[in-house]
Amino acid sequence: MYLGRIRRIPADQVEVVAWREGGELLSLSGLDGPADPVALLNTYGLERLTEEVDRLWTTAPALLEESSVFFEPPVATCTKICCLALNYLEHAEESGLEVPPVPVLFFKPPSALTGHNRPVEAPARTKHLEHEVELAVVIGSTTRDLPAERWQEAVAGYTVINDMTARDLQLANIDRNVPWDQAKGFDTFAPTGPYLATMDEVPDPQALELRLEVDGQVRQRANTKQMVFGIPQLIADLSDGMTLEPGDLIATGTIAGIAPLQEGDVMRATVAGVGTLVNRVTFRTA
Amino acid sequence: MYLGRIRRIPADQVEVVAWREGGELLSLSGLDGPADPVALLNTYGLERLTEEVDRLWTTAPALLEESSVFFEPPVATCTKICCLALNYLEHAEESGLEVPPVPVLFFKPPSALTGHNRPVEAPARTKHLEHEVELAVVIGSTTRDLPAERWQEAVAGYTVINDMTARDLQLANIDRNVPWDQAKGFDTFAPTGPYLATMDEVPDPQALELRLEVDGQVRQRANTKQMVFGIPQLIADLSDGMTLEPGDLIATGTIAGIAPLQEGDVMRATVAGVGTLVNRVTFRTA
Repeated sequence: MYLGRIRRIPADQVEVVAWREGGELLSLSGLDGPADPVALLNTYGLERLTEEVDRLWTTAPALLEESSVFFEPPVATCTKICCLALNYLEHAEESGLEVPPVPVLFFKPPSALTGHNRPVEAPARTKHLEHEVELAVVIGSTTRDLPAERWQEAVAGYTVINDMTARDLQLANIDRNVPWDQAKGFDTFAPTGPYLATMDEVPDPQALELRLEVDGQVRQRANTKQMVFGIPQLIADLSDGMTLEPGDLIATGTIAGIAPLQEGDVMRATVAGVGTLVNRVTFRTA
Repeated sequence: MYLGRIRRIPADQVEVVAWREGGELLSLSGLDGPADPVALLNTYGLERLTEEVDRLWTTAPALLEESSVFFEPPVATCTKICCLALNYLEHAEESGLEVPPVPVLFFKPPSALTGHNRPVEAPARTKHLEHEVELAVVIGSTTRDLPAERWQEAVAGYTVINDMTARDLQLANIDRNVPWDQAKGFDTFAPTGPYLATMDEVPDPQALELRLEVDGQVRQRANTKQMVFGIPQLIADLSDGMTLEPGDLIATGTIAGIAPLQEGDVMRATVAGVGTLVNRVTFRTA
């Protein structure tokens, strides 16, 4: 299943929807439970929720057009976005850095989240905005000190994230040897979605093509099999001493091809089998 | 007023309490509203909440001993902990770094929060844990792009935070020129409290003595007047492009004197007029 969170235009209440090939959205507002795909999965279990959704598709399809809704990020309760730095060799090379011997983490705050089809807005303090397509793991359950081989217990599914970066601000801080979290933490700098893809849709998360296009031109393209540290090891490492919570995201690192954006550019960030996240760029001038 | 969040032993429901000199705690569970000092302040306003609390002190004092409760962090809805790096000259010098020309931000996740009198637990992956006492600003209202001169509109009050740091992990990443957020992001690495001190208790937040003692010995001591970037400028800078939310914390930077801790060390982190936060250190061995 592919589960999203939307608001109908002009109504403002959040609903969960299911999506399938072809593009129509099925409202799940008739199901008991919060308007949150992760919570619904935890309440029903994947198998029973799939049955309920299949029943709705066939018996009472309250369908919506993608164009008639605002997309929210597919997680309602995110408390942290755990981002991996330098988790693909070719991206480390283009950054002039060596791949580290252990996973390297930084945080984006939940206030940076935005949804599919929503604008990414660079604040006036940056003139150099770049895209970074990534596979994101959606945490499904409270997780601490989980061994790598049990990684699936932590996971509700997958989604697409575009780790927007004010490169000028980041590089200025790198030159000073100080943290650069702010350059990646502005509002709308974590577009995420459109959907949470449940685990049955993604039999092997280490064999997914990643691609980012800007106005039809491919800028980034690689495969999750090229990750330095795979998802089991990332979950083991991040949960070693730090609790992962339902709705938290692990952005598993970007690939080579990062490049500047211009006003009005439309980014299409795709993870094959997970989704295509579309966001237009705008620069604030004051 | 000094407002905290506690759970009675053995009951597990969170209550808001008011504290005053002498040490007894007044339960505010009779007041309408959520068990959250920031939300109570927003619901009642400071003046009316003060009246209500004064009335309870004189007419129906349901008093608790500090020793009969578990302290929770004084914020219930924290979505991010914004931490300032190198915001005191003498700490920058001991770190071998120059004071940057603009505020430098990194994030700790809300999962790192813990309360007064609760253990700080170093995971087995670090052998070198250090304390960093700081004044924390508690955000009271949703804030974006706020000019420095209007900084008070954002603030609910102040508290004490101890920015616990696995220095060995941090320095290893500094050597590799990669982020070190993980070294400061483990569970219990953001002890905070005991209380939110409302703004009337802190007429000048830039004239507060900071002190950290370990088993009675003073390790860190300075004054908030020595901050490089003061609170108005920090709020203006952080809110420029990033939304601050009620319950978010700004940890305004530590002072010189950071040093390693041993198993069983008891840290007393004091900000004069704001509070004294006590936490014992323990090292996990597996």
